[in-house]
Amino acid sequence: MSSHRTYADDLFPQEVMDSGTATPPQDYPSSTSSQSSHQHYLESANSRIHVGWVTSPYEAKEELDTAISGHCSRLGEAKYTFVAFPVGGVVRGFWKPVEGAKNEPPAIQLPDVQLANNLWETYVTGRTSPWIDCDSEDPKFAEISEESLITELNYIAYMGLNSMTIQLNRISSPRTAALFNKWVWTRNTRFTMWIQLPSSIEQCVDFDPQSTPKNMDIWTIWANFRQGCYNFSGVYLQAMLRIAGDLPDEFVDTKRVDRWKAEPLGGFVVETDVYATDRNGMASLSSAHISFLRQLWSSDDLRILVDPKTDTFLYNVTLKAEYALALRQAVRDVNYKSSESSTTSLAVSEYKDVLQAPLQPLSENLDSSVYNVFEQDKIKYDAYGDAVMGVLKELGADGRREIVIYLLGGGRGPIGTTILRAEKDYNTKFRQKGDHLKVKLYIVEKNANAIITLRYMNHRTWRRRVTIIESDMRRLPEIARKMNYHQPDLIVSELLGSIGDNELSPECLDGVTDFLKPETISIPQKYISYVAPIMSNHIHQTIRAQSIPYLARGLPSHGRLQPELNGEGAWVQLYPQGDIINNMDQIYVVFLSKYISLSRQTKEMFTFQHPNFQHSTNERSAFIEFPIDRNTDIMGFAGYFDLHLYKNVILSTVPETHTPGMMSWFPALIPLREQLRADDGDTVALKINRKVDQGGVWYEWSAQLKKPNGEIITTPIQNPNGESYYMRM
Amino acid sequence: MSSHRTYADDLFPQEVMDSGTATPPQDYPSSTSSQSSHQHYLESANSRIHVGWVTSPYEAKEELDTAISGHCSRLGEAKYTFVAFPVGGVVRGFWKPVEGAKNEPPAIQLPDVQLANNLWETYVTGRTSPWIDCDSEDPKFAEISEESLITELNYIAYMGLNSMTIQLNRISSPRTAALFNKWVWTRNTRFTMWIQLPSSIEQCVDFDPQSTPKNMDIWTIWANFRQGCYNFSGVYLQAMLRIAGDLPDEFVDTKRVDRWKAEPLGGFVVETDVYATDRNGMASLSSAHISFLRQLWSSDDLRILVDPKTDTFLYNVTLKAEYALALRQAVRDVNYKSSESSTTSLAVSEYKDVLQAPLQPLSENLDSSVYNVFEQDKIKYDAYGDAVMGVLKELGADGRREIVIYLLGGGRGPIGTTILRAEKDYNTKFRQKGDHLKVKLYIVEKNANAIITLRYMNHRTWRRRVTIIESDMRRLPEIARKMNYHQPDLIVSELLGSIGDNELSPECLDGVTDFLKPETISIPQKYISYVAPIMSNHIHQTIRAQSIPYLARGLPSHGRLQPELNGEGAWVQLYPQGDIINNMDQIYVVFLSKYISLSRQTKEMFTFQHPNFQHSTNERSAFIEFPIDRNTDIMGFAGYFDLHLYKNVILSTVPETHTPGMMSWFPALIPLREQLRADDGDTVALKINRKVDQGGVWYEWSAQLKKPNGEIITTPIQNPNGESYYMRM
Repeated sequence: MSSHRTYADDLFPQEVMDSGTATPPQDYPSSTSSQSSHQHYLESANSRIHVGWVTSPYEAKEELDTAISGHCSRLGEAKYTFVAFPVGGVVRGFWKPVEGAKNEPPAIQLPDVQLANNLWETYVTGRTSPWIDCDSEDPKFAEISEESLITELNYIAYMGLNSMTIQLNRISSPRTAALFNKWVWTRNTRFTMWIQLPSSIEQCVDFDPQSTPKNMDIWTIWANFRQGCYNFSGVYLQAMLRIAGDLPDEFVDTKRVDRWKAEPLGGFVVETDVYATDRNGMASLSSAHISFLRQLWSSDDLRILVDPKTDTFLYNVTLKAEYALALRQAVRDVNYKSSESSTTSLAVSEYKDVLQAPLQPLSENLDSSVYNVFEQDKIKYDAYGDAVMGVLKELGADGRREIVIYLLGGGRGPIGTTILRAEKDYNTKFRQKGDHLKVKLYIVEKNANAIITLRYMNHRTWRRRVTIIESDMRRLPEIARKMNYHQPDLIVSELLGSIGDNELSPECLDGVTDFLKPETISIPQKYISYVAPIMSNHIHQTIRAQSIPYLARGLPSHGRLQPELNGEGAWVQLYPQGDIINNMDQIYVVFLSKYISLSRQTKEMFTFQHPNFQHSTNERSAFIEFPIDRNTDIMGFAGYFDLHLYKNVILSTVPETHTPGMMSWFPALIPLREQLRADDGDTVALKINRKVDQGGVWYEWSAQLKKPNGEIITTPIQNPNGESYYMRM
Repeated sequence: MSSHRTYADDLFPQEVMDSGTATPPQDYPSSTSSQSSHQHYLESANSRIHVGWVTSPYEAKEELDTAISGHCSRLGEAKYTFVAFPVGGVVRGFWKPVEGAKNEPPAIQLPDVQLANNLWETYVTGRTSPWIDCDSEDPKFAEISEESLITELNYIAYMGLNSMTIQLNRISSPRTAALFNKWVWTRNTRFTMWIQLPSSIEQCVDFDPQSTPKNMDIWTIWANFRQGCYNFSGVYLQAMLRIAGDLPDEFVDTKRVDRWKAEPLGGFVVETDVYATDRNGMASLSSAHISFLRQLWSSDDLRILVDPKTDTFLYNVTLKAEYALALRQAVRDVNYKSSESSTTSLAVSEYKDVLQAPLQPLSENLDSSVYNVFEQDKIKYDAYGDAVMGVLKELGADGRREIVIYLLGGGRGPIGTTILRAEKDYNTKFRQKGDHLKVKLYIVEKNANAIITLRYMNHRTWRRRVTIIESDMRRLPEIARKMNYHQPDLIVSELLGSIGDNELSPECLDGVTDFLKPETISIPQKYISYVAPIMSNHIHQTIRAQSIPYLARGLPSHGRLQPELNGEGAWVQLYPQGDIINNMDQIYVVFLSKYISLSRQTKEMFTFQHPNFQHSTNERSAFIEFPIDRNTDIMGFAGYFDLHLYKNVILSTVPETHTPGMMSWFPALIPLREQLRADDGDTVALKINRKVDQGGVWYEWSAQLKKPNGEIITTPIQNPNGESYYMRM
């Protein structure tokens, strides 16, 4: 190891031995239980789990400001990997303003050239002066505070630090938020800002047992602050939860704790009075504290700061190291992946929270690689096989010798193969030789490119048994009459999107109704969409932040308008509704990750049945209510569906009933333009219409929030007239 | 090697031995001259240099369409790494339309499922049917051609090919260009399009010795086509030069050949009639062909296609391999880097053609890391040291004991150290002990953050010898009078940008004039900016393609307007002039790479001298003319400067006089909104004004093109009133 030593190792030596008394937690991974791999695991935890130290007045002498390097080295020996240091130096940082007096804070004194730029970046978090209070009731001091905070932010930018932290001591900090709002949006210097929240509402300097609302909580303090910063990116603006000896209820109640999974959480500040002494005389954490940390330890990228509340550590030389050790012990196995297991989940992780536009196979031909991906989902095709088998058994029970099946929208033909395989299986099981049931199979496909594949498949695999019809299925009645094709006993299709009907399966299948017999069966028989309200600041930000690069400025939007050739000879797509409304008024497909559902149950939205012999309208309207059981920001609604292929053969993406192993569909997302603040006890409803006109189909939606006192808040109707999201047919 | 075999290796085996007769070209790198490393070099050339084969009617049988894999394998044996294959299959590809008859081209027959998607991507370039001619004079056939071309492009997208190629056979192909224009801008499928140009003007089907303009050339055919595609990204739309036996003049004349260095060149198609037979009986290239290939072989990412013009290769089994070998021999050492040399140029290469906004140190404080980078330029500080030494010698010659120096804009102080070191050197060389010349040094700096560093430097390095003045230098006269500071004998500054005055050195230095003595010397004494017209489609596209991501929407533009807080609580920067005009009307700093200069000489633009005791205006106006000696597109003007520090101590970024090893400044770029087409014999001029008002300084510019017949074309005035680029003071 010494051959790879760097300057950084001298500052924060990683190889210092772990204290021998450490014992792994109960769910410690068994694959690493041997002596040497255990040692390896402990060492990796020391570099994986970043625990930092808050430099406090107890230890801060003026000389420290020009001796950062030695300070870091000493902390490194106690296994701290970074330090939160007053960005103005200790004299300024621990200055005490005098009430009423003319206050002039000490100047900044922390020279940059004492350390290489990359070491500042890695090891030092700039802590703003704790005396700064931009929301002070004393207007003079608020003004001094604002000036001082800007000076310190400027200095953090000058130094090139990667992170800074500020402590909020109030329930309401609008001036601080306004200052940060301007900074983050208008300054071209990016660093991570850890906003430390109060450890409890009662600790806030503006707490008043009379006037502070009963349901005020720490989450609301954060949500107001981030909203005051116009929800700036959670990559840079993050909450840090302060943990003191007494945990407030909201850090114990799981459903309220869960909200932090939908927020940009940067980590924790642990005050040293949370530590007890265990029977070995070492600093240790209570099970409530450990449980809270572990619940939210979503990633080893989170940071923990130890904030000393007494000077005991000055006299007890091992205490500092024990503080860090206890924290690493608490969380180090939560996200630990042994080298064997770490590769498996990579494939899915690249889709996490990535916004995809739902496919529109009707108006845009799928390509070979997309078909190829879908064709991998064995679970789905097995279910189709079971459903077809069910129909063959039912219809074949009368001894008939032929069944006419139309596969509507055949793609490259995987269900064609499934159908012919079901025929073979059926005959093997249920028919004598010479008495075989023969499937007469037609495949209808409108994608001229896929037709080339279908013809090749027919030649190579299906022994020319299939009649391939190159056409939109809605022209099938006309073509079939002309060509004298047989009427179907069974039609099979897989035209479903993430909320079932959103690839226009209802419209496509209605187009063949005139060609059906009264007894024709459809696979699928029915599909139902489902929704649930969700919380996710991250996904809200991600949707808003989408922008259209120059090279994409001519690509068709998903709305009603199409690209136009302008006078300069350039193809351009116009967005008269504006980029942001365009972004927010879309349906997305997302593998949801950094979110939580706000309802224990998803609820039904729309139902479609086939064949639709009555030609019932495919327009729909729904109003779906959900009780809200905590203070929250609702970002939108997740959408799912289940698919009733035939009788009890069902496929589902609904969380409660998800078909194991099926991967063809990610959830849909129906976003709100702004996150909707709801309180414990409110009721939220999704109002959604499915509308149809000559050219296509679109959804219009809004949310309605009902307060316990009867007050009703309604959000604007999104995607009016399909201006942003229009499914062409 | 066999343990790593993949399906791909079976298709195109890389390990087939190089023909033994290969001899390295003369400038073959000597570091690899041993037997085994030579072998390694040859093997690496086979995989580095991509030579592909154009499947031709000579060998194309219908069965090939479903036997692509075997076809590729056989080509791989002859060391071809890819194949250009008719995307509709050979029947369609080599169909011959019959004049006058009702023409119905054969359907596409090239099934995708015969090969895995990634193998199609890697090994097959889709060639559109050679009979397609959208610009045919026969309107019916032009229409059939358009439909057929769209069908084939759709199929290329469906297959997921990474590249396609089409042959232009006409001087003028507006309908083909219009079709591609719509495709590239409105289709969300990206693949590289190699546009094969005619091998000579005379080969074009629409060539007419009478009416075709004399100066028409192949470059113009390409430039018209790319402009017809609204200059779509050169990552996707690339020219491929077709090389036949006779090279046209423009492929021989170096200055005309050079234009392809400023265009997105995809590679070459080499017709087999270019090959001669060498004395060993092997296919070989003429020195003119080799020279042409080598001149433009800018990167091993270029591709070469061999296009057979006879069927000889069918009977001569080694000929195919000889074709590929001769091409690899021609170019394989041009960009060859032995493993030792490949690391050195990395640092600069990451800046190639990267657009940077010029620093504005006056209105925006520099940060620590920026200072740190500049402080590395030893060459620059040595020159400043020489200049100061020159002044000390001159002034010290009268035996005086003290010299008062003001360093104006001290930053973190490197020139302060330079000055004190010059004092020491001067005394060592020219003064007796006890008769030392003492420099009284003042450093003025307005960056409050850098002041903290300067104070620390003064304390640690300069033994408190320096008087540090925290102020904008323009307030120095006022402060100095109040504080009774000495008047300077010498002022030293380094306030220069890429074209000298663009960091507002003239305005800053004018601000101290009232405090100077009549004999005060200024370092620098003078600086002059220089310009030259350049050609670079790549940089034009890059400037236009810049877009503003959501998280940057509140960042200040470089223009007159500032970000505003809107009604929603969001900080937003408005661009009423539009994104594209905003992008084009800026001065950039760029390490120019994919460009050529269109003038042998840079020419002077603006001159500034200091001290400016007469308070002459800092407004300037220039009209700088350049003769144009080839057909070209002018994208803008590159800008440079030289800096006369003191007497003969000069620093320069001008190409003709560049100070060796100095790295502080990259060139500036003054772009035109649209590329300006100029012909051989035209004259282009840059008209540029430097304007000053209360708040700042800006340039306004336009270009003027004069034709030999006296016709004058003037481009719009860019950056009017500093709306897009305004240097605040």
